[in-house]
Amino acid sequence: MTQTFRAIDVIRTKRDGVELSRAEIEGLVSAYTKGDIPDYQVSAWLMAVVLKGMTRPETAALTDAMLHSGEVLDLSSLKARKVDKHSTGGVGDKTSLVLAPLVAAAGIAVPMISGRGLGHTGGTLDKLEAIPGFNVNLPVAEFRRVLEICGCAMIGQTAEIAPADRKLYALRDVTGTVESPYLICASIMSKKLAEGIDALVLDVKTGSGAFMKSEKDAAFLAELMVETGERMGKQMVALITDMDQPLGNMIGNALEVVECVEVLCGKGPADLRELCLELAGWMLHLGGASNTVADGKQQSEKLISSGKALEKFRQMVELQGGDSRVIDDPKLLPQAQHTLQVTSDKNGYVRSIQCEQVGTACVILGGGRERKEDTVDPAVGIVLHKKVGDRVAAGEPIATIYYNAEAKAARARQLIQASCEITESAPSTKRPLIHRVIAKAVEKN
Amino acid sequence: MTQTFRAIDVIRTKRDGVELSRAEIEGLVSAYTKGDIPDYQVSAWLMAVVLKGMTRPETAALTDAMLHSGEVLDLSSLKARKVDKHSTGGVGDKTSLVLAPLVAAAGIAVPMISGRGLGHTGGTLDKLEAIPGFNVNLPVAEFRRVLEICGCAMIGQTAEIAPADRKLYALRDVTGTVESPYLICASIMSKKLAEGIDALVLDVKTGSGAFMKSEKDAAFLAELMVETGERMGKQMVALITDMDQPLGNMIGNALEVVECVEVLCGKGPADLRELCLELAGWMLHLGGASNTVADGKQQSEKLISSGKALEKFRQMVELQGGDSRVIDDPKLLPQAQHTLQVTSDKNGYVRSIQCEQVGTACVILGGGRERKEDTVDPAVGIVLHKKVGDRVAAGEPIATIYYNAEAKAARARQLIQASCEITESAPSTKRPLIHRVIAKAVEKN
Repeated sequence: MTQTFRAIDVIRTKRDGVELSRAEIEGLVSAYTKGDIPDYQVSAWLMAVVLKGMTRPETAALTDAMLHSGEVLDLSSLKARKVDKHSTGGVGDKTSLVLAPLVAAAGIAVPMISGRGLGHTGGTLDKLEAIPGFNVNLPVAEFRRVLEICGCAMIGQTAEIAPADRKLYALRDVTGTVESPYLICASIMSKKLAEGIDALVLDVKTGSGAFMKSEKDAAFLAELMVETGERMGKQMVALITDMDQPLGNMIGNALEVVECVEVLCGKGPADLRELCLELAGWMLHLGGASNTVADGKQQSEKLISSGKALEKFRQMVELQGGDSRVIDDPKLLPQAQHTLQVTSDKNGYVRSIQCEQVGTACVILGGGRERKEDTVDPAVGIVLHKKVGDRVAAGEPIATIYYNAEAKAARARQLIQASCEITESAPSTKRPLIHRVIAKAVEKN
Repeated sequence: MTQTFRAIDVIRTKRDGVELSRAEIEGLVSAYTKGDIPDYQVSAWLMAVVLKGMTRPETAALTDAMLHSGEVLDLSSLKARKVDKHSTGGVGDKTSLVLAPLVAAAGIAVPMISGRGLGHTGGTLDKLEAIPGFNVNLPVAEFRRVLEICGCAMIGQTAEIAPADRKLYALRDVTGTVESPYLICASIMSKKLAEGIDALVLDVKTGSGAFMKSEKDAAFLAELMVETGERMGKQMVALITDMDQPLGNMIGNALEVVECVEVLCGKGPADLRELCLELAGWMLHLGGASNTVADGKQQSEKLISSGKALEKFRQMVELQGGDSRVIDDPKLLPQAQHTLQVTSDKNGYVRSIQCEQVGTACVILGGGRERKEDTVDPAVGIVLHKKVGDRVAAGEPIATIYYNAEAKAARARQLIQASCEITESAPSTKRPLIHRVIAKAVEKN
């Protein structure tokens, strides 16, 4: 008897809460990618997944089917172990620009395929493109060449990688089926594993600016991704990190490049620096460059203080066509025409900074996109002068807005003012930067 | 501020289990009917409805929106009260052909818009079309004229009635979203209320041959439909009736016409006769022709014994172009070329008859359709000689197959043989014909 794949049966099975087989999931993904089954059947199935969930084997099968819907990079010619990091995204989250050269400086290959900003969160590709000349659209052969020479390279998703994810994501976006940890896991992991990596460090954000607001939801997604990666033979760890206020002080594409260079020079804000070192420590450990995570962190600090990490960054920028003089002279980055101070109207302490509002303020200035087809202004952004817990006096600046259009600046100012809650007493507790580490098969820090 | 309807918001709201407003439901149905929103958004919404359910106000709003997506018949020119009956369908379920003339004979108007058979269940239109010349496709003006003259008329759904239901049903059929009492309720009620009726008697089947196998599910759907109808100002009652074995003895389109004529002549099998009288009793009561249901049943018996019900049937057949001579001479109905006996292989008692298998046997013979586009053979079918509880001897016929194709008859025979479970002892309990009556505002029988 010939096995005929019937989409309706796969939909009904999931609707009734019965586990799907690997063959059924592969059949659905493959038929959809080829255009053999219509959007309306897949969207019904996606909604059933959102509401009924998936088992771990189903999640791994979906990830695998999406991964193999396209090309999986063969980086076996590189002798070094290949390790990447993925963040679920946030405001001021710029660690990739620090981590790729820092970890490559330790002799580990970092083949990083990143995305663009959407909604209130920024994207690595937009930040890189703030560097004049930087090309994120390298063909695969050129990507491999840069990796071989300098150990790290950063590009955007190509048409060949996980086409099923691109098609499914576009459908989820318009059918209310984005919000499922199982679908999020498969989407992220299928793209990351297409990089041909050995290990992956996940930075799962939690807090007001994160996709997963609660630590519980963030931990659930993190565990799901760690298990899925391990089922597919990868070394995995996930850090649940704080996104209840922006990371670092600078938000906006060119401004974030400046802040990353500061960190690579051993300076920069404490929270950004600390998170970069923590993630680098794990990347070095999983990449076999250190016996412990603590040792990996120490090595990373040395690679920064010795200037080796910064040199690696300079090399990558040059290999990808960028103007590396921006590293020494930030004024060569796109500059906003005007600045505007946002001041506090009272004495007190910063109790909270609503991330989403700050991120939205940056989008309004032109630094992000509301729709995929929007273009971004690399020069605009926000520099925060105060973080949660800081003392502030009436009239004192809490932020500076970098802008090119007056009306937009006024709207951004309102949002930033509204995002900062200032109270008489200092907040009694401080949220940790690292909430939790989720690792299964490897050493727990 | 202009209120802009966003399908994605309606999907998300239902996904999150939050009640939708009447305006949101109307917006979705109206936009979909007009083709302003795509199938893939509606199928995601339908799946969310299947898995999250609907409140009673939502169900009524959906029914109302689907009803008003098309024409609602204006039968106000008819002085009589207008009452209809709807059955959720089963095997051998042929009461409509008896009820329309019987209830019309009591002075109540019965404007019946029916459907075709699909899957293992038969359809009223297919049965009527077994009568040579009978036209179920009357234009609305002609439908009204027949109603005015004889008090009953039976046609198929027109393109003008509830187009939203037609479009939604086609989508549900291919997206695994048929199985929701809320969607079933809205689909049935929107079409029935488009008939412009004052009252509706629902025959909700339960048992092996019914869509709702369990009495609990049948009662839930029944209560939902009763409440929805009452919210829309109609008098409602639902009878939960047995469909654990075929109703009556004959299955197949021409054969079922024969059995209906028998009942209209005061003969026919006890179960079919009893159910027709029970439903007619309720229709007369809700139509104001009797003070009680019991009185309505008694009147109905008299209308049969006096020959008035049969005369009404003859009149309707003639007005709709059919050859009424079939009433006196059943041989004028389409006749199968061959017959085949199915015999018992042992002595004992019939413990059960699996409805679905008998219905499927009739479909295989050509008497039903597996796909909408299939044509039906009116002549073929099955006559059962035994019902549940009957004694049977080895070699004694349990059924006769009426067929036109040898190979099909062989397959049907296997199915019928398999459908009858024969045991040594008689079944100790007998399922009632009427399981429950669900009425709110009216007298409980």
